[in-house]
Amino acid sequence: MAQYKAPLRDMQFILHDMLNVENHYASIPAFAETNRELVDSVIEAGAQFCENELAPINRSGDEEGCQFNDGEVTTPKGFKEAYKKFVELGFGALSAPVEHGGQGLPPSLGIAMSEMMGTANWSWGMYPGLSHGAINTIEAHGDAHQKEVYLTKLISGEWTGTMCLTESHAGSDLGTIRTKAEPQADGSYKITGTKIFISAGEHDMADNIVHIVLARLPDAPKGTKGISLFIVPKFLPTTDGGVGTRNTVKCGSIEHKMGIKASATCVMNFDGATGFLIGPPNKGLNCMFTFMNTARIGTAIQGVAAAEGSFQGALEYARDRTAMRSLTGAKNPEKEADLIIVHPAVRQMLLTQKVFAEGGRALVYWLSIYNDIVQGSADAEAKKAADDMMSLLTPIAKAFLTEVGYEAANHGVQVYGGHGFIREWGMEQIVRDTRIALLYEGTTQIQALDLLGRKVLQTQGAMLRNFTKVIHKFCQANEGNADMAQFVAPLAALNKEWGDVTMRIGMKAMSNADEAGAAAVDYMMFSGYVTLAYLWAWMAQVAQAKLAAGEGDAAFYQAKVQSAQFYFKKILPRTKAHVEVIDGGAETLMQMTADGFAF
Amino acid sequence: MAQYKAPLRDMQFILHDMLNVENHYASIPAFAETNRELVDSVIEAGAQFCENELAPINRSGDEEGCQFNDGEVTTPKGFKEAYKKFVELGFGALSAPVEHGGQGLPPSLGIAMSEMMGTANWSWGMYPGLSHGAINTIEAHGDAHQKEVYLTKLISGEWTGTMCLTESHAGSDLGTIRTKAEPQADGSYKITGTKIFISAGEHDMADNIVHIVLARLPDAPKGTKGISLFIVPKFLPTTDGGVGTRNTVKCGSIEHKMGIKASATCVMNFDGATGFLIGPPNKGLNCMFTFMNTARIGTAIQGVAAAEGSFQGALEYARDRTAMRSLTGAKNPEKEADLIIVHPAVRQMLLTQKVFAEGGRALVYWLSIYNDIVQGSADAEAKKAADDMMSLLTPIAKAFLTEVGYEAANHGVQVYGGHGFIREWGMEQIVRDTRIALLYEGTTQIQALDLLGRKVLQTQGAMLRNFTKVIHKFCQANEGNADMAQFVAPLAALNKEWGDVTMRIGMKAMSNADEAGAAAVDYMMFSGYVTLAYLWAWMAQVAQAKLAAGEGDAAFYQAKVQSAQFYFKKILPRTKAHVEVIDGGAETLMQMTADGFAF
Repeated sequence: MAQYKAPLRDMQFILHDMLNVENHYASIPAFAETNRELVDSVIEAGAQFCENELAPINRSGDEEGCQFNDGEVTTPKGFKEAYKKFVELGFGALSAPVEHGGQGLPPSLGIAMSEMMGTANWSWGMYPGLSHGAINTIEAHGDAHQKEVYLTKLISGEWTGTMCLTESHAGSDLGTIRTKAEPQADGSYKITGTKIFISAGEHDMADNIVHIVLARLPDAPKGTKGISLFIVPKFLPTTDGGVGTRNTVKCGSIEHKMGIKASATCVMNFDGATGFLIGPPNKGLNCMFTFMNTARIGTAIQGVAAAEGSFQGALEYARDRTAMRSLTGAKNPEKEADLIIVHPAVRQMLLTQKVFAEGGRALVYWLSIYNDIVQGSADAEAKKAADDMMSLLTPIAKAFLTEVGYEAANHGVQVYGGHGFIREWGMEQIVRDTRIALLYEGTTQIQALDLLGRKVLQTQGAMLRNFTKVIHKFCQANEGNADMAQFVAPLAALNKEWGDVTMRIGMKAMSNADEAGAAAVDYMMFSGYVTLAYLWAWMAQVAQAKLAAGEGDAAFYQAKVQSAQFYFKKILPRTKAHVEVIDGGAETLMQMTADGFAF
Repeated sequence: MAQYKAPLRDMQFILHDMLNVENHYASIPAFAETNRELVDSVIEAGAQFCENELAPINRSGDEEGCQFNDGEVTTPKGFKEAYKKFVELGFGALSAPVEHGGQGLPPSLGIAMSEMMGTANWSWGMYPGLSHGAINTIEAHGDAHQKEVYLTKLISGEWTGTMCLTESHAGSDLGTIRTKAEPQADGSYKITGTKIFISAGEHDMADNIVHIVLARLPDAPKGTKGISLFIVPKFLPTTDGGVGTRNTVKCGSIEHKMGIKASATCVMNFDGATGFLIGPPNKGLNCMFTFMNTARIGTAIQGVAAAEGSFQGALEYARDRTAMRSLTGAKNPEKEADLIIVHPAVRQMLLTQKVFAEGGRALVYWLSIYNDIVQGSADAEAKKAADDMMSLLTPIAKAFLTEVGYEAANHGVQVYGGHGFIREWGMEQIVRDTRIALLYEGTTQIQALDLLGRKVLQTQGAMLRNFTKVIHKFCQANEGNADMAQFVAPLAALNKEWGDVTMRIGMKAMSNADEAGAAAVDYMMFSGYVTLAYLWAWMAQVAQAKLAAGEGDAAFYQAKVQSAQFYFKKILPRTKAHVEVIDGGAETLMQMTADGFAF
């Protein structure tokens, strides 16, 4: 089985050569001290932790899974110990605010860390990952007392957090949740209801668990405008910040899942549990929306992780396994067969994984640069512009990267042939683990509607134009560059087509809203391929500049350019199919009666 | 969890309305007695067995898996009993020759039975499925004594069979196998070596297991021309056909796999085991090729099974689960949300599953009509033509249908949202079980090379023209039919493009063989989409004729036409992308050095 190696060279290429994060951080007062040396030392320390502590317990965690026994959840062997080390090393507090014990580093650096953790062991990373949701909620909407009691403990990692949204009848349709919150004389609330699919809802890794719960007040309006947010701790805190009385929230069972088996997915029963209102009443969903983008970027990372992890595994195998002869004559005549990396079909799979892993990394890191601005900048206009850009790109990153990450994971299995189906090689686990990424935090279909409906059509294309202008400027800036013509010409054409396709959908949707619904998923995939084309063109341009200047490792930059060429020649044609499907319209989807689907 | 219902209405549409099997069987003397009534009674009895005996132990079989203990394998609860019933009901002998106890029914009827068994419980179906391989081998190449001793027991189902090909270093590259066969004074051989991935290699369902083993004689030439075929029974038969001495072949372990967990995948250790040469020495691979097509059609069925099973599950859920409102206004105003089948994106997934399930069924059944001719016809010319057609279409059916079947299985998970990831719903099992179909019996990549290299380019396009002529005639025959223009025009254009694309690849491959390798997978997928377009156009034509004549259930035929419309509008555009990828050539695949893939 391939051992995870953090792709430090590629991470540094993106952070430094491409995004020039040192300059970027310097432009935001809050992060001005984060220089290149600090960036590199943080990611190198992170890489060591992920390679040495998390990767070795990834497959054993999958085999062992979480154990449930009368309300208690036991995590697999080594999980608790790795978490203890994680807390001691301060990794959980990397990009948390200094005033509550965090290190105050830029969110983008936390994203790089998340990618490594996620690739090494996605299940394990779910536990601290969920704490981020609780941290963000309390930081944004908690009062001073709530911050003092909960935030410090969550940031230090002594306690972990959850997000309790879903109920068995209500996934993305949160307007229909039924969990009740009854006000008590002391200002607290009694929370009653059952939540499902609660990641890290119960476990043995921390002293306390802080649940952020969506519930309805007695007089709440129906639907999404009647939902409030509550803090419900597993143990009520004592006045000195310790762990007090056990609250009446209990894990009823854990799910048996296709993958991420070491991540406890809990049914949580709230039985008149004591909770504390956070944020204004009935504004719970609005409060959640404020950091939904970061949660979705967190899931987008799973796509990158799946592509990177499966690429590493497949590449190791392809450079080691022999089968058949090259079609152009034996490359390894002294052995009875050639290495499978000589075969074009194997290379096609490896390169597909590679361009999704590296392109996806570039997209997520670039997006997180905007997040730094939203989180850290004092310039309201810059914040607004960055937030708009994130709003457009986040559903693309989430849906597109998890879809192509899943494809890449499947290529990893395929490169191994029959061995890919066998658990010990670890390739099939990536497929199983990453399948959830297309479902949670809003399915691909929900993201696609968010992109096309809310972000593009509802803004009359304004949000899209923000980005197509960026691409247009890039194309203009590289117009005279002969080496870049191979990328600029098709990118410019697709950029124009993006606008045209949008216009055509918009026109049709005006008379029939189902036209937007019918187009949404293909539109999202089209948008993803164009977005990644922009990032690959950008990376090629950076690499070509380095080659021209004779700077750095020429072989590395050469491979970057070749990867971009592969992406443009062999991946980008998929946009053609998506456009034609979009133009195919809604009729053939909608005309069949529900009874007509089967007889 | 959705219960499997055999899609009898659709099966009958294909068998009777479309393929008119009664006439077809009547034209082959060996099968002339198989009339419509017999066909329907066989598939109805088969449906009952699959629905009532196999489907109920599908998920429990996955949860329990096979148990290995010191060479013995225990199958999951109920597997043995279901097998006993299967044997008693004579299902294993359906299309086996009458002279050895079979019922002598046409192979195509056996295929319909295999589809139902496979959809109800793929793992279980592997046990009798592997017997087919052994039966075919002994029937084609065994001597009279071997047929008498082994064939009758295999056909009755008292014994089961295996195919022992793969070794740990050699999957599809069988030329490099190392298992040895040493001749003994009594005419038998001592077989020594280790085989892996042996399905049904050891189990508790039958009295004896007949292994068909590929091995090398001491003086065998190197490579594929030095492989011979042996019968190695688990127990040596007694002179009266009973079970005698235990042979020195033993199961060393079973694999832990992603899916088909109830199918025992065995490491088989042959330790000087007694074997009997079957067929001529050193011609083992040739002997195997004679029925490779049927084995691959057997795997193609797994694609159909995955599409059908996941479609049934997803459709049931989509007609029951509510979430969100229709984009065109509430369809279910008295409830708090609409059924998810109102959403275009859900319909897109359901219809994709549906057209792959029904189109794939049509392809496999149609192919098996040619197989009937190859197996049963006395007309040498008709046999040759049918064999040529099968040779071209089989790698397409195997690779394309398993690829799109896997896609359909994933849509099944997606329709369920987060619940799709949970084992109890059964949708994720279909994904895990069917993932193997893209790997065994030759991966997608191997099939693609077989199609483009051996079948198309090596025959200078002759085999392809056999089929494009069929499509051309169909288009001509329907030229004047206004209702058919929507299908005929795009089909005719694609049919022409198929030839053009082939020509372009052929030209490039003449100077660089890697151009064929680089094009192969996309060419295979392109071929699959065109093949299915032909079948959907054909089905639409049949349905339209029934509608015009006012025969039968109009709603059923209407839905068929609508499904064809969906396929042409929403699936067929994918061919555009494949053509452009093919034309993108080999350069971007081959230019990167093996070292350049990662740094």
